[in-house]
Amino acid sequence: MKVITFGEIMLRLAPYGYLKFLQTDSYEATFGGGEANVAVSLANYGVDAAFVSKLPKHEIGQCAVNTLRKYGVDTSMITRGGDRVGIYYLEKGASQRASKVIYDRAGSAMQKATEDDFDWDTIFTGVDIFHFTGITPALGKELADITLTACEKAREKGIMITCDLNFRKKLWSKEEANAVMSKLCDYVDVCIANEEDAADVFDIYASNTNITSGEINHEGYIDVAKQLQARFNFSHVAITLRESISASDNRWSAMLYTKGKAYFSKKYDLRITDRVGGGDSFGGGLIYALLHKYNAQDSIEFAVAASALKHSIQGDFNLVSVEDVNTLALGDGSGRVQR
Amino acid sequence: MKVITFGEIMLRLAPYGYLKFLQTDSYEATFGGGEANVAVSLANYGVDAAFVSKLPKHEIGQCAVNTLRKYGVDTSMITRGGDRVGIYYLEKGASQRASKVIYDRAGSAMQKATEDDFDWDTIFTGVDIFHFTGITPALGKELADITLTACEKAREKGIMITCDLNFRKKLWSKEEANAVMSKLCDYVDVCIANEEDAADVFDIYASNTNITSGEINHEGYIDVAKQLQARFNFSHVAITLRESISASDNRWSAMLYTKGKAYFSKKYDLRITDRVGGGDSFGGGLIYALLHKYNAQDSIEFAVAASALKHSIQGDFNLVSVEDVNTLALGDGSGRVQR
Amino acid sequence: MKVITFGEIMLRLAPYGYLKFLQTDSYEATFGGGEANVAVSLANYGVDAAFVSKLPKHEIGQCAVNTLRKYGVDTSMITRGGDRVGIYYLEKGASQRASKVIYDRAGSAMQKATEDDFDWDTIFTGVDIFHFTGITPALGKELADITLTACEKAREKGIMITCDLNFRKKLWSKEEANAVMSKLCDYVDVCIANEEDAADVFDIYASNTNITSGEINHEGYIDVAKQLQARFNFSHVAITLRESISASDNRWSAMLYTKGKAYFSKKYDLRITDRVGGGDSFGGGLIYALLHKYNAQDSIEFAVAASALKHSIQGDFNLVSVEDVNTLALGDGSGRVQR
Amino acid sequence: MKVITFGEIMLRLAPYGYLKFLQTDSYEATFGGGEANVAVSLANYGVDAAFVSKLPKHEIGQCAVNTLRKYGVDTSMITRGGDRVGIYYLEKGASQRASKVIYDRAGSAMQKATEDDFDWDTIFTGVDIFHFTGITPALGKELADITLTACEKAREKGIMITCDLNFRKKLWSKEEANAVMSKLCDYVDVCIANEEDAADVFDIYASNTNITSGEINHEGYIDVAKQLQARFNFSHVAITLRESISASDNRWSAMLYTKGKAYFSKKYDLRITDRVGGGDSFGGGLIYALLHKYNAQDSIEFAVAASALKHSIQGDFNLVSVEDVNTLALGDGSGRVQR
Amino acid sequence: MKVITFGEIMLRLAPYGYLKFLQTDSYEATFGGGEANVAVSLANYGVDAAFVSKLPKHEIGQCAVNTLRKYGVDTSMITRGGDRVGIYYLEKGASQRASKVIYDRAGSAMQKATEDDFDWDTIFTGVDIFHFTGITPALGKELADITLTACEKAREKGIMITCDLNFRKKLWSKEEANAVMSKLCDYVDVCIANEEDAADVFDIYASNTNITSGEINHEGYIDVAKQLQARFNFSHVAITLRESISASDNRWSAMLYTKGKAYFSKKYDLRITDRVGGGDSFGGGLIYALLHKYNAQDSIEFAVAASALKHSIQGDFNLVSVEDVNTLALGDGSGRVQR
Amino acid sequence: MKVITFGEIMLRLAPYGYLKFLQTDSYEATFGGGEANVAVSLANYGVDAAFVSKLPKHEIGQCAVNTLRKYGVDTSMITRGGDRVGIYYLEKGASQRASKVIYDRAGSAMQKATEDDFDWDTIFTGVDIFHFTGITPALGKELADITLTACEKAREKGIMITCDLNFRKKLWSKEEANAVMSKLCDYVDVCIANEEDAADVFDIYASNTNITSGEINHEGYIDVAKQLQARFNFSHVAITLRESISASDNRWSAMLYTKGKAYFSKKYDLRITDRVGGGDSFGGGLIYALLHKYNAQDSIEFAVAASALKHSIQGDFNLVSVEDVNTLALGDGSGRVQR
Repeated sequence: MKVITFGEIMLRLAPYGYLKFLQTDSYEATFGGGEANVAVSLANYGVDAAFVSKLPKHEIGQCAVNTLRKYGVDTSMITRGGDRVGIYYLEKGASQRASKVIYDRAGSAMQKATEDDFDWDTIFTGVDIFHFTGITPALGKELADITLTACEKAREKGIMITCDLNFRKKLWSKEEANAVMSKLCDYVDVCIANEEDAADVFDIYASNTNITSGEINHEGYIDVAKQLQARFNFSHVAITLRESISASDNRWSAMLYTKGKAYFSKKYDLRITDRVGGGDSFGGGLIYALLHKYNAQDSIEFAVAASALKHSIQGDFNLVSVEDVNTLALGDGSGRVQR
Repeated sequence: MKVITFGEIMLRLAPYGYLKFLQTDSYEATFGGGEANVAVSLANYGVDAAFVSKLPKHEIGQCAVNTLRKYGVDTSMITRGGDRVGIYYLEKGASQRASKVIYDRAGSAMQKATEDDFDWDTIFTGVDIFHFTGITPALGKELADITLTACEKAREKGIMITCDLNFRKKLWSKEEANAVMSKLCDYVDVCIANEEDAADVFDIYASNTNITSGEINHEGYIDVAKQLQARFNFSHVAITLRESISASDNRWSAMLYTKGKAYFSKKYDLRITDRVGGGDSFGGGLIYALLHKYNAQDSIEFAVAASALKHSIQGDFNLVSVEDVNTLALGDGSGRVQR
Repeated sequence: MKVITFGEIMLRLAPYGYLKFLQTDSYEATFGGGEANVAVSLANYGVDAAFVSKLPKHEIGQCAVNTLRKYGVDTSMITRGGDRVGIYYLEKGASQRASKVIYDRAGSAMQKATEDDFDWDTIFTGVDIFHFTGITPALGKELADITLTACEKAREKGIMITCDLNFRKKLWSKEEANAVMSKLCDYVDVCIANEEDAADVFDIYASNTNITSGEINHEGYIDVAKQLQARFNFSHVAITLRESISASDNRWSAMLYTKGKAYFSKKYDLRITDRVGGGDSFGGGLIYALLHKYNAQDSIEFAVAASALKHSIQGDFNLVSVEDVNTLALGDGSGRVQR
Repeated sequence: MKVITFGEIMLRLAPYGYLKFLQTDSYEATFGGGEANVAVSLANYGVDAAFVSKLPKHEIGQCAVNTLRKYGVDTSMITRGGDRVGIYYLEKGASQRASKVIYDRAGSAMQKATEDDFDWDTIFTGVDIFHFTGITPALGKELADITLTACEKAREKGIMITCDLNFRKKLWSKEEANAVMSKLCDYVDVCIANEEDAADVFDIYASNTNITSGEINHEGYIDVAKQLQARFNFSHVAITLRESISASDNRWSAMLYTKGKAYFSKKYDLRITDRVGGGDSFGGGLIYALLHKYNAQDSIEFAVAASALKHSIQGDFNLVSVEDVNTLALGDGSGRVQR
Repeated sequence: MKVITFGEIMLRLAPYGYLKFLQTDSYEATFGGGEANVAVSLANYGVDAAFVSKLPKHEIGQCAVNTLRKYGVDTSMITRGGDRVGIYYLEKGASQRASKVIYDRAGSAMQKATEDDFDWDTIFTGVDIFHFTGITPALGKELADITLTACEKAREKGIMITCDLNFRKKLWSKEEANAVMSKLCDYVDVCIANEEDAADVFDIYASNTNITSGEINHEGYIDVAKQLQARFNFSHVAITLRESISASDNRWSAMLYTKGKAYFSKKYDLRITDRVGGGDSFGGGLIYALLHKYNAQDSIEFAVAASALKHSIQGDFNLVSVEDVNTLALGDGSGRVQR
Repeated sequence: MKVITFGEIMLRLAPYGYLKFLQTDSYEATFGGGEANVAVSLANYGVDAAFVSKLPKHEIGQCAVNTLRKYGVDTSMITRGGDRVGIYYLEKGASQRASKVIYDRAGSAMQKATEDDFDWDTIFTGVDIFHFTGITPALGKELADITLTACEKAREKGIMITCDLNFRKKLWSKEEANAVMSKLCDYVDVCIANEEDAADVFDIYASNTNITSGEINHEGYIDVAKQLQARFNFSHVAITLRESISASDNRWSAMLYTKGKAYFSKKYDLRITDRVGGGDSFGGGLIYALLHKYNAQDSIEFAVAASALKHSIQGDFNLVSVEDVNTLALGDGSGRVQR
């Protein structure tokens, strides 16, 4: 079983602990990005996962490659070239203080990539699933075109396509997103979204749900999933449901809608170590479950348990095993010492 | 708008994380002190804030100056001289374990300062507000006299005077505090106190309130504010209301009493990163609101939101912007990532 | 008053903060082990506590000795020799993610110790209490024999014997434990156990208690204590009651059963900094209370407050004073800053 | 006395110690840039130094401002706007392994600055010296034009102009540098260069000097200075002479040529802590000496001693006092403890 | 081109900087071992290098695998199983204070490996060079046998065999080494040794050389190489020549003897960052040169330059590129900043 | 064999690495002081060494006690009381930049100690050597008197007295030192001094020696020793000879003068890690040699080798064993890895 994810990996620079940007003299340097995070999740589960992107030849680019290799991701299809690795600065929030992200990704090797940089016939050899997120086409017209090319090629080869809508308002407007994502979603089999994406990208609203209040309206989410399914003929729609109590405490659950039926997961009370990559780890879990033909309820439980664990892990990557996820999904969230 | 704060700034030596003094081989070295903390809050809000104090010429004294400069505080009126920078050692508590403070401030440059060290006519040029706390006069007879001189000068020049009672039992007795603060408070316009200060300094009690139980008795606090107002003719009395669940979790709110009416703020559930300086950040927020003629309810909401955020920030200083405070005061405490 | 504890002390290698093994490039290096932890607790309370063990002559062995000396434990009876210091790797969990322990203790100096390494007549001179745990005899046949010898000698000299059952399934089977511990417990006066040990070691069950659900069944625990007391004629049976909400939050209380009566402590809501050594700190507190002839209720309150504090302290050791424990046991768990 | 320096300040990201990029998971984050470094040197000497540049309004931009403020540089004339802070990654070399710099400065706020961003009439009020380096005009056509404007304005106002040639081959070609710098140097009074700049920028060669061999040819340097002086009518030409034994050991001296005469400094054997900013600290020292009308020999000794000390200091900035420099310039380089 | 190296990789625990074991509370955790180090060198040069060994399935074992993967080594032929990862503690020396190594490798997965763990037919598919060192057979009788099996298989398949004698007196006696290595060396084509190995392992002495005095006797080394070549019919004998001035300063060169002729390299004055792995990096460089058919002089220069650079790099691994080595080998050891 | 050392132990706060005070946000916290350093040296050599002093009861005082206990020093005779632990801030120099020390020791528990705090009859029970330095009496009149009392008591009991002159110009004037030390030296048997102390304290000069030039004049030192011996009838005079090349490189040797004859040690070229405590480690080595009746040449070689090693160790304490010292004294300073 082989999965391709396609997108940008960035250098993530974060002050240690809960220091603010204004206080720090050092940065924890890790790497992350929506699609790379999914690849790492899958590699940790033992899936053959390759990440496709473009990175400079210099040592900062090499560091990104090495990090992916370290966690078992196949990096042999990453094109090398361009000048810079995109950066995002992350200040971790706590209690009432929100996390802050400052993007510095303009002009990255990936943003300046062209159609010629990727040979999809080679990339897609022997592949079962192609995964991308709404961030990749948001990087610019060329990237949107490349993503479309990839979707066409994948469709041709009968590869399942999964997509996390992942709307980023700093990258494009809702109108731009709608136009581009509408075309791409025609190719997508499995659609993943958080509680706001459907509204931001496709102007589809969950009736009667107030996100900031933290109240979850099950019927509303089912309604959204139905609308999405109806419009794009997705085989599966998965929606994560985050209730933010504060930057330190969230509640976390999700719904999987497939074949006209909605499956809701357990809900977890999370003490957050690092919530960046939480959604991606859900995607990674869901793709794993799909690859292994889990039934719908087991799939959503696996994906949610996987992403619940991610919130306890520093960095973008979800470094857990299938066994770790199953232990939680099957019921032991007591956090007792394993010894 | 210009504000002067007057007091001592100390080197704060704290083991990293939750290590105890007995475990540490290194100290995080920051600076702090009730009045300096207020100056930094104000400078972060864009107010022209100058801190007046005395610091040695050597490099440890210079480090204190540089820290204040870094955060935009005007240090040009700090007198240089004396031998040592006062120190406080801080061991951060967690859960049921309380934080510990060991003071090592005797003999500091500020404690040995004399009337000649401060030229109030120069200092008060163009000033709108003069702020001090009960710590400064507690540093010794000379400092109490200097503070009185400053108050007299400020009164002469029509400068508004704000004072945080800030009783420190390791610096003086309740009787000493009562005698000195009674004289100083005759000059004060705005009185800030926590839930214990009025009792400790002026023997004024909130009827029916049990602080350790965490129960807040609104009527009792109004009663205390009325008594304070009656005795010193304060234009405003602000009282912070802390309910300590544990060293990790507090509830935090406050009351502003002015023109015969009490205004209570929202109450926040805090996951504490660092509670030292929490009260000072309330003072900073309140002074900002007064300078900008916020109405009473908005003032107390701004001050409480500001200080709620402080509890999530490492160190004595509250490094937030007006925008950060308003986001919280106006209702978003969900801690969602800003990106 | 003098106490001897006998067991292995290991090098504890833990990634910093909440990093996983897979993420770390550095390890916090401390030392710990059930019996050493008790010795440190007692030394902190001012009790003359000696730790008996075997450690290599090389510098890693010396580091273990130095750590114990630092905290005031008498190390003069530690035999020096052998090749290696046992190691345990600890990955700290958070929220739903459990802590992980990887033992690497085979072949340690202590595991290879022989009867000749310990001269119990000398060791027990002037001693009031001898403490061991179920870990020591689990280290191998020779260690089980040595422990038996020690118990016999202690009994001869009228030394009180305390034992924490401390079952470790990675060291021996339930059957082996039952056989060996049954013999040893005939010598024991005070038996300490957690909510699972009695079942694991002696096949004694608390009726109607579901540990994973976190429900505490008081009657069930009393029943277990009675069975233990009946079988081994213990003067005291103490059982700690941990309710694991998650790796970050636990509830913690305990019961002391003596002279036919059960005494339950207050229950604490713990925000966990480090739960390893939590049980040992309970043992240390209980032994202190027994040495000082506290009554049963005061004893269990002291032991539970001591161990509640331990959960807020990094590392295996409980570095609190009698005064710290009493402050909490007598009611102030508000975590207010001491200044 | 007031000095303006004009250029870009970058975030400097360096692995700790001697780790290579490929090994690091964290970066020491400081700020630096040729002209900012000179401003900090001067502020440390007590000179009123303002740094003129453009920086984003976000917190990474604010960190740059705060660092400069911390060290006493006047930041009130920095224009705020643009998207990113330029970055340079630095891997420190040791022994035979050279330091590596990877620039990531394209698209920075300063590179995208326009003529409108700087009001030179205001900036130059009360100014004695205007300092820039060859890096600023190398940032692009617009920046070269702005620099020329600044030079014209400074000339008009009778402000002395100092320029460090500072050729950077990654920013422009020798031909471009020659064209632009030739125009700018017509305005310059004091020209600072290292042993290669004259050749790289103006095609002027020191006869008979082999830089890689480490042999210093005094006559050759005098010859270069004469050619430079003849071409641009500089009042002073200062050339630093670095002999690189290895990345860890250098020999360091300089020559000042003025009024037809060459003055050579003492030569220092340096154990290098951080050589980045070494040339800038020489410029800072020389400007200080010129401002204080030191004679030629004293000037070059001060400048070289200042920069010798810089090589022992981590980061771009030379954080030494006039007294520190004089102690070394006057002869005590023994490094004995001052106590 | 593909190279197999076979041996043990250990967890290396080193206090940071120059701290002694007795001072440290944390360990830098890296991985290393003679044969793994060679594999990493080669992978950095772009060679397809696989490391063959046995490592536990648990996360400490996985960390070793991940580190190798990070640097591009093929880990697909590592057998997973066994209980522990061998450890070596390293205290870095400085000046007159020597580095100290404490081995804790007994009972490691690799030491307990058996013939069945390695399928040499699969391992040697498409391989050009097989490399091992004297450490691997020193791990025990079984490992010596496995190494012999590997040599036989390699010989059968016409694979070139390279061996670094690497005598470790803590693993076996000179007599044992002589017996085993004599058999193995019959298969070896290229023999690598330091200035003491020939004497320790084969009782072959360099006439008139006094190692501790640091005097290098060229004729003596040629004599040793001739004796080695005569006895085992090696195609190449390479001997590294280390002159230890102190733990901080060494001189480093080497000799390659082939076809009856000795080729001496340049000699480097090293300021040492980390000398562990210095010899291995020489081996890696030499193998690279042999693979690429460098002539004898170029080969020895490449190998010595590579290992000179290693001494400036923290950890066992030599993380340099072919370009880095060539820059030094071709003459620029001045350590000038590359920018 | 038992040794008493008497003096103050201070908290040493040092920026990490080579950071300047102005750059640091954290301090490495260790403890040190001339006499404590000697006690630690001796405890490391296996000598029963007790340190006599006064320290506060609070946790900072306890940290000092714990550090001494960790390294095996007997702390049972330290009086507990007073308010503060003296502090010294240390900025480590490099190359031409000198280390800086800022003392903040006024008002320490030890400085405020009184005669009643020390019961010399108890302290001196079973003692062979009493050691103090010129720092202790320099702490004030009371301390000078206590030191005199101690000397009288030691003399009465036939205890050998050793004294390191250790002149500190920030504590007292040369005149004060001369007056007090002259009285004390009448009791001293073994006098230790550096190359400047005799001049500073007793106005005794080495003829023809220029310290700053680094030239050592053997005859001059012998002359100084003779004068000292003549004036105070010392049995031994030991003088350390430091030649400061820079803060990074020193040459180090010493002379022992006894029974009319001078013995010069080998001279070591030191790469300095930390030179504070260098002289104290010499004293510790010399006292060890005297206790073990080494002959004069062996004594001075042992003392100098011991202190040469100290310069490679971070912190005030010399953490080496007798074996470590002998290895160097007997000739192996090559720093080869011990493995």
